[in-house]
Amino acid sequence: MGKLARKVALVGAGMCKFGANFPHQRNPDMWVEAWLDAVRRTDNGIEPKDIDACYVGNYSSDLFNHQGHLGPQMAGLVGLVPKPASRFEGACASSGIAFRQAIIAIASGIHDVVCVSGVECMTELPTTGVTDVLATASDSLFEYPAGATFPGLYATLASAHFHKYGTTVEDLMRVAIKNHENGKENPYAQMQSSIKDIMNSKISKIKASGGEIPDWKDEFDFLKSRSNPMIAYPLRLFDCSLVTDGAACLFIAAGDVAKKFTDTPIWITGTGQGSAELSMHDRESLTSFIATKEAARQAYEMSGLKPKDIQIAEVHDCFTIAEIVALEDLGFYEKGKAVDAIKNGETKRDGSLPINVSGGLKSKGHPVGATGAAFAVEAFKQMRGIAERNRQVKFDVERMLTHNLGGSGATCVVTIFEK
Amino acid sequence: MGKLARKVALVGAGMCKFGANFPHQRNPDMWVEAWLDAVRRTDNGIEPKDIDACYVGNYSSDLFNHQGHLGPQMAGLVGLVPKPASRFEGACASSGIAFRQAIIAIASGIHDVVCVSGVECMTELPTTGVTDVLATASDSLFEYPAGATFPGLYATLASAHFHKYGTTVEDLMRVAIKNHENGKENPYAQMQSSIKDIMNSKISKIKASGGEIPDWKDEFDFLKSRSNPMIAYPLRLFDCSLVTDGAACLFIAAGDVAKKFTDTPIWITGTGQGSAELSMHDRESLTSFIATKEAARQAYEMSGLKPKDIQIAEVHDCFTIAEIVALEDLGFYEKGKAVDAIKNGETKRDGSLPINVSGGLKSKGHPVGATGAAFAVEAFKQMRGIAERNRQVKFDVERMLTHNLGGSGATCVVTIFEK
Repeated sequence: MGKLARKVALVGAGMCKFGANFPHQRNPDMWVEAWLDAVRRTDNGIEPKDIDACYVGNYSSDLFNHQGHLGPQMAGLVGLVPKPASRFEGACASSGIAFRQAIIAIASGIHDVVCVSGVECMTELPTTGVTDVLATASDSLFEYPAGATFPGLYATLASAHFHKYGTTVEDLMRVAIKNHENGKENPYAQMQSSIKDIMNSKISKIKASGGEIPDWKDEFDFLKSRSNPMIAYPLRLFDCSLVTDGAACLFIAAGDVAKKFTDTPIWITGTGQGSAELSMHDRESLTSFIATKEAARQAYEMSGLKPKDIQIAEVHDCFTIAEIVALEDLGFYEKGKAVDAIKNGETKRDGSLPINVSGGLKSKGHPVGATGAAFAVEAFKQMRGIAERNRQVKFDVERMLTHNLGGSGATCVVTIFEK
Repeated sequence: MGKLARKVALVGAGMCKFGANFPHQRNPDMWVEAWLDAVRRTDNGIEPKDIDACYVGNYSSDLFNHQGHLGPQMAGLVGLVPKPASRFEGACASSGIAFRQAIIAIASGIHDVVCVSGVECMTELPTTGVTDVLATASDSLFEYPAGATFPGLYATLASAHFHKYGTTVEDLMRVAIKNHENGKENPYAQMQSSIKDIMNSKISKIKASGGEIPDWKDEFDFLKSRSNPMIAYPLRLFDCSLVTDGAACLFIAAGDVAKKFTDTPIWITGTGQGSAELSMHDRESLTSFIATKEAARQAYEMSGLKPKDIQIAEVHDCFTIAEIVALEDLGFYEKGKAVDAIKNGETKRDGSLPINVSGGLKSKGHPVGATGAAFAVEAFKQMRGIAERNRQVKFDVERMLTHNLGGSGATCVVTIFEK
């Protein structure tokens, strides 16, 4: 396993507004909106004739929308036919994989410019249906029949982490509070409200209906109340990411052609991917993901960077506990120590290692197949200094990392970006 | 778009017996059987530690088996965790895409040895369910609600070909007769019977039941009878490929490491992929596939070969008409002329351009996500001179082509192999 034979750059990136977009929008509509947003953000413009192939990440339009074969469908909508168009799947890391394969294809010399698409339209199904579809990313022979849907699997992880490292429900809540504060600043996010906003809105409603005013001193009290119902102990509603429709689009180019599109390419200097046994009961650890460790090892090795060199990261917070475990597995903090850093505010927007400035899956939303590409959209914005509202970090971002996890951690893709 | 930066070779290949294997076997069981078959056919052996990544082609285990995220599942079964493991989808060209992306990954320098898996378990659903799932590879917004399942879409193609070139039902039947003659010689095929065998068996049954003996002079009479029911005019039952469970496994390696596994690597000298609009009503032609033409153009250009240089080919005969169109689109015969070559016996096993010596999808079977990889298994066997029974062609195969089509032609992958 070696280095990429050719330099690769991100030259344009965009996304549609994430949310419960169906039935107003389906995958084709959201994809075209994301494409246009990315075209607009490509300095010198880009046209279909400039692009060699279309790489589509999607988890399960099969089950969500009764539509397969998304490669040519997405390519056809933006004028890329008859160029190669393929779909890539790795559960919630699907467009992370599409992005990585596109990087590899450019490095191989077979393509110079590739368009990466991430799409998922989940709200065509009711929430119980969504939970069922997501559970097909676990082991359908053993975990699924036992009723272990994803909140249950991540609750198992959280319980093990609590037991081994003394992590608490307040530690989880701090992740949710921070990510909602960030999502409030993202006009593309599904929930643009802080948890304090949500709490105050709830209080207003109770007042208006003449009910008994709850004795909530702060967000923690609210998050421990019946207004934040238990989903799978110790995970409550606000520990879970959102059910979302969305699409994202990336344009990546070989180093020698990137200058055609921009004078300020974002270089992709590290890519890594790892796997784990599909079933959690087959794994050695419940508090660490070997897929993340392996993906990170490869990406750090390729880029020559170490965890301490990373200035800012987007990590896969499908559940609050997943953000904590990611910060440890990526080498940012020792096992069991990430919670202290979170408590000290290090991972806030103005901290020493801002995490999920986009709002994360928790607040920005989690259209599973689009999430990996959407991470790269935030990297593009933060490194260009163009993130909207008050979300842009206050220093010049030269080195950023994104972390995209699939299922209960059986797939992971890590990417490192540099200016 | 250019050449591969590094030589790539096929060093091992194998498959499980194709058939209605469920419930005795599911994807995991068939995959392990195919893996072991490929290991056995790798001259110097191969072990998980030799392999850098697992590339899985599968159309829709989501809808067939309520199981997604096959990358890590397949990797875990053969000891490849924590290496990268991904799933690739392009309808019936899914493992053709997995194979191509694996070739590209090796060319890029990121991997040296990749394991390619193709799997599909279709008979877990009843036939009507299978037809419904396959229809999700067409356009679910326009074609599917109109009732245009795949037999109907290919029947449209056949009718247009009849109209434009004077092609006849007998021309279609010759494809089926030839491919069943070949499949009879393949111990891995689902139907190991010639159509004459099937006809004679039918006659015996009628005799045994005391029924009126049909006046069938030859296979054509049988194929025009009620015993070969109309599916979608002009396509009858024996114009359609089979509903199949199956898996195939390929080991491919960079040129400089291939000699570790064998002294006689099969070189992959051309790979091409094309796309078309997903909906047939959006396309300019009903009698030709632009995805095939584009994929073939790229593969010929990369290899430096021309159609006349190809000695033998496996083409995507999901319906008999598809084989005829493929022979034209690949440049072997002028439009409308392939039927003459078929009539003259040129495409038979002892003809000047043997086509689908494996038995094709028509007789070997068509587990959709496994088909692309299974084409390469036949290339491996024919080029090594190890095809079973009486199926091996009688000359030394130095240049072979495989053609893998997805959906109603919206995806195509073409691969050229040389010794």
